[in-house]
Amino acid sequence: MSLLESDRRNCNVVDLLPYNTQQGVPITREFLLKLIEVLLEFVRQTNDRNCKVLDFHHPADMRRLLDLDLPDRPVTLQQLIDDCCLTLKYQVKTGHPRFFNQLSCGLDLVSMAGEWLTATANTNMFTYEIAPVFILMEHVVMEKMREIIGFQGGDSILAPGGSISNLYAFLAARHRMFPDYKQKGLSCIPGQLVMYTSDQCHYSVKSCAAVCGLGVDNCVEVPSDERGRMIPSELERLILERKAKGHIPFFVNATAGTTVLGAFDPIEPIADICQKYNLWLHVDAAWGGGLLLSRKYRHPRLSGIERSDSVTWNPHKLMGALLQCSTIHFKQDGLLISCNQMSAEYLFMQDKLYDVQYDTGDKVIQCGRHNDIFKLWLQWRAKGTEGFEKHMDTLMELSEYMVKRIKSMPDKYYLILEPEMVNVSFWYVPTRLRSIPHSPERAKLLGQITPVLKGRMMTAGTLMVGYQPDDARPNFFRNIISSAAVVEADIDFLLTELDRLGHDL
Amino acid sequence: MSLLESDRRNCNVVDLLPYNTQQGVPITREFLLKLIEVLLEFVRQTNDRNCKVLDFHHPADMRRLLDLDLPDRPVTLQQLIDDCCLTLKYQVKTGHPRFFNQLSCGLDLVSMAGEWLTATANTNMFTYEIAPVFILMEHVVMEKMREIIGFQGGDSILAPGGSISNLYAFLAARHRMFPDYKQKGLSCIPGQLVMYTSDQCHYSVKSCAAVCGLGVDNCVEVPSDERGRMIPSELERLILERKAKGHIPFFVNATAGTTVLGAFDPIEPIADICQKYNLWLHVDAAWGGGLLLSRKYRHPRLSGIERSDSVTWNPHKLMGALLQCSTIHFKQDGLLISCNQMSAEYLFMQDKLYDVQYDTGDKVIQCGRHNDIFKLWLQWRAKGTEGFEKHMDTLMELSEYMVKRIKSMPDKYYLILEPEMVNVSFWYVPTRLRSIPHSPERAKLLGQITPVLKGRMMTAGTLMVGYQPDDARPNFFRNIISSAAVVEADIDFLLTELDRLGHDL
Repeated sequence: MSLLESDRRNCNVVDLLPYNTQQGVPITREFLLKLIEVLLEFVRQTNDRNCKVLDFHHPADMRRLLDLDLPDRPVTLQQLIDDCCLTLKYQVKTGHPRFFNQLSCGLDLVSMAGEWLTATANTNMFTYEIAPVFILMEHVVMEKMREIIGFQGGDSILAPGGSISNLYAFLAARHRMFPDYKQKGLSCIPGQLVMYTSDQCHYSVKSCAAVCGLGVDNCVEVPSDERGRMIPSELERLILERKAKGHIPFFVNATAGTTVLGAFDPIEPIADICQKYNLWLHVDAAWGGGLLLSRKYRHPRLSGIERSDSVTWNPHKLMGALLQCSTIHFKQDGLLISCNQMSAEYLFMQDKLYDVQYDTGDKVIQCGRHNDIFKLWLQWRAKGTEGFEKHMDTLMELSEYMVKRIKSMPDKYYLILEPEMVNVSFWYVPTRLRSIPHSPERAKLLGQITPVLKGRMMTAGTLMVGYQPDDARPNFFRNIISSAAVVEADIDFLLTELDRLGHDL
Repeated sequence: MSLLESDRRNCNVVDLLPYNTQQGVPITREFLLKLIEVLLEFVRQTNDRNCKVLDFHHPADMRRLLDLDLPDRPVTLQQLIDDCCLTLKYQVKTGHPRFFNQLSCGLDLVSMAGEWLTATANTNMFTYEIAPVFILMEHVVMEKMREIIGFQGGDSILAPGGSISNLYAFLAARHRMFPDYKQKGLSCIPGQLVMYTSDQCHYSVKSCAAVCGLGVDNCVEVPSDERGRMIPSELERLILERKAKGHIPFFVNATAGTTVLGAFDPIEPIADICQKYNLWLHVDAAWGGGLLLSRKYRHPRLSGIERSDSVTWNPHKLMGALLQCSTIHFKQDGLLISCNQMSAEYLFMQDKLYDVQYDTGDKVIQCGRHNDIFKLWLQWRAKGTEGFEKHMDTLMELSEYMVKRIKSMPDKYYLILEPEMVNVSFWYVPTRLRSIPHSPERAKLLGQITPVLKGRMMTAGTLMVGYQPDDARPNFFRNIISSAAVVEADIDFLLTELDRLGHDL
């Protein structure tokens, strides 16, 4: 892979801009265009079903295949290009049509283009002063998302991932109930604070309890039904139980799209309970939020979401925005700033040239923020709201197709439950277990073969599907369809390939 | 700006990969290459001293200049390219040699190339399974950084910004002292926890106190000396004062490079005090950490850092890595995982094909993490450790040059203090105030003209320098040299331009 004309093969970083003011422009151009060829080839391979999803090696072997050393002296530009090639050679193609492994699958090329521009613009989102266009884009996109949720007015912010978004909700809820807390800490609270979430929730909810001083013991797990949905009567029972102890329930997290089963907690009855006991209702729709864009699939899954106080919604999941793009929305305006403001005089002066309400830095706990908006804004322009709706409907229809196919092969596949979303949970059944009726003992055996089959899948490199246990079951596969690259034939391939790899297990 | 051949001018997103499997490759290629031309032109302008740093407009005017609407229907690929052009037209060029406004200035083109690849690879850093190469790069780079700090072994993680890095330090410190806290919360602590930091610290330290339940009242501000450095005897006095009240001091933050003045708290005597009273010593070297790479400037500023328990160090500041790249390092291995682990079974199974100690997701509070390592790794390859050292020395020498120039014009410029770092703090003195001897009254007048001059600077678009007040002074300029693009002539320009814009104020 030759980068440069022969007389430039020994060029290094100081031949680029800004170091070399004479030849810097053409050499920089050559270097970046050569890199782009490498990236375009990766994009092509990602979209080529004849290419593998990954080329797996164990960590120690991978260390030997790569040269990761940090040298004292510069390497050449040519070496950097070679480094990029090697990196991509061994990187998992998360945008491949046969990558079903995570909640964020796919490589949206417009969002990627947006991220290239974001990198080139290299700015920080804390002030309008240095990110004017991007700050305005945040306003426009966040307003649109709140409108889709059903909030009138309100406020929003982008955060580095759904876990931090959930943390923002927790902080705002605590702040609204106990505004002295920021200054005085827990000592100003007249009793033990308690929060509620289902036993299927994302673990970041419990993490809030650990980080913020409640302790995980005071993050009460509400039992869920057989499809993974919080049982509202259990929520009420547990609220009363803690109230009887003199504790202070203050926060309920309803999950809209659980991580493993894709279950939707019933928001309406949970909202009734929150209203009755004056608790903050947060909806963690990091995963399921995208379905708000589909008239067909939004209801009943997300019905009542407009009654919540806050909503986490990650466009980097169902909507296919590049990692990371997570949003948190509040019904009440002004809370984010009063909760998180530390009034850093050096950044957020009130005597600036422009209207400083556009400076967002004092609303957040991170100070500096990565620009996560441009890729989403550009993608929204590219697809239109209708394009997102179509994307959601397609993903759901493909999941329905997969469920139908699995049900048509009851000897080879055991469907764990009828999904509400694109999480399809199942066991693969190898030949020797097909004639045995299903039972907890057989489930145990299927749970044992699941990681082995996953290992074969990774070694073969043809497919990636995740697995995990849950409280009720040993290991099972959880297939995710969240990539625009997937078509029905890929699902057919998936089911055939699992059988090819696993039938003798 | 015409993107495509005439018969492709109405193409939109569904003509790209993965939607269009026939023509997708060539159309995608054309679209992305056209974008790259737009980006390369922005890079060229950023490095062209004849181009402006920014084209300022007030928010309401900017809204009119841009078309930010989120349409129902897709726009064309051509429109997306036009959108990108317009976005960059009004974006501040943070890599311009006359951009001195933030701690992160400059556009390192290798780091940018790295970020383009990162976007294209679009993966999440929580498991080796889907980010094998990048996870190994983290190991190598983090180990190198700990070695430079002077830690033997230990553990590290990348976080979305220095504020979250500081939060990790706080959490680990609390966890080491009170391991029951995670489960039981504050109620298991036999008294009020107290933390210490100087009155010049970054506001994220106080934010930890608010977020984590201490309350800002229990984040004690230790007075600093006339150069902004924490006074160790005051620290000890304040520890004893709180101990006398039955409180539990547990955490001291020493800042290595304060945000405004660039001051270095004296680590050695602070470490002695922490040792004496058994407190966790965290060094927030988000800003000053880069100087660890310079044999010339490391001492005495960072002497003793190896005695600390944790260190925040942001390569996206002095080292010029693209935003964001922040690291937190711990002397003790194992704390991060025991502190933050929530054992999410669905992600971090122990029965995987490979050695799961490489899965980092359970060490962090974010769950998913953006890949912030590749851009830094590639940059390190490009510059070599020696290149970073040279970069640090150059930045410091340029700052010394600026101080010398300011001192040579005592009528026009008032140097606020001899800086320890690249923060040069000064007032510009307009003609009418030159004959008046300096006094608090004159300082007040200079403070009033500072934002006005900043406004003129932004309107002219030729220069960006930040300003702020501090506890001891009204508004003053804080000039930052952290960009590799800056040469002495840019500093000469800066000083001449301020005079041109402000002499009549």
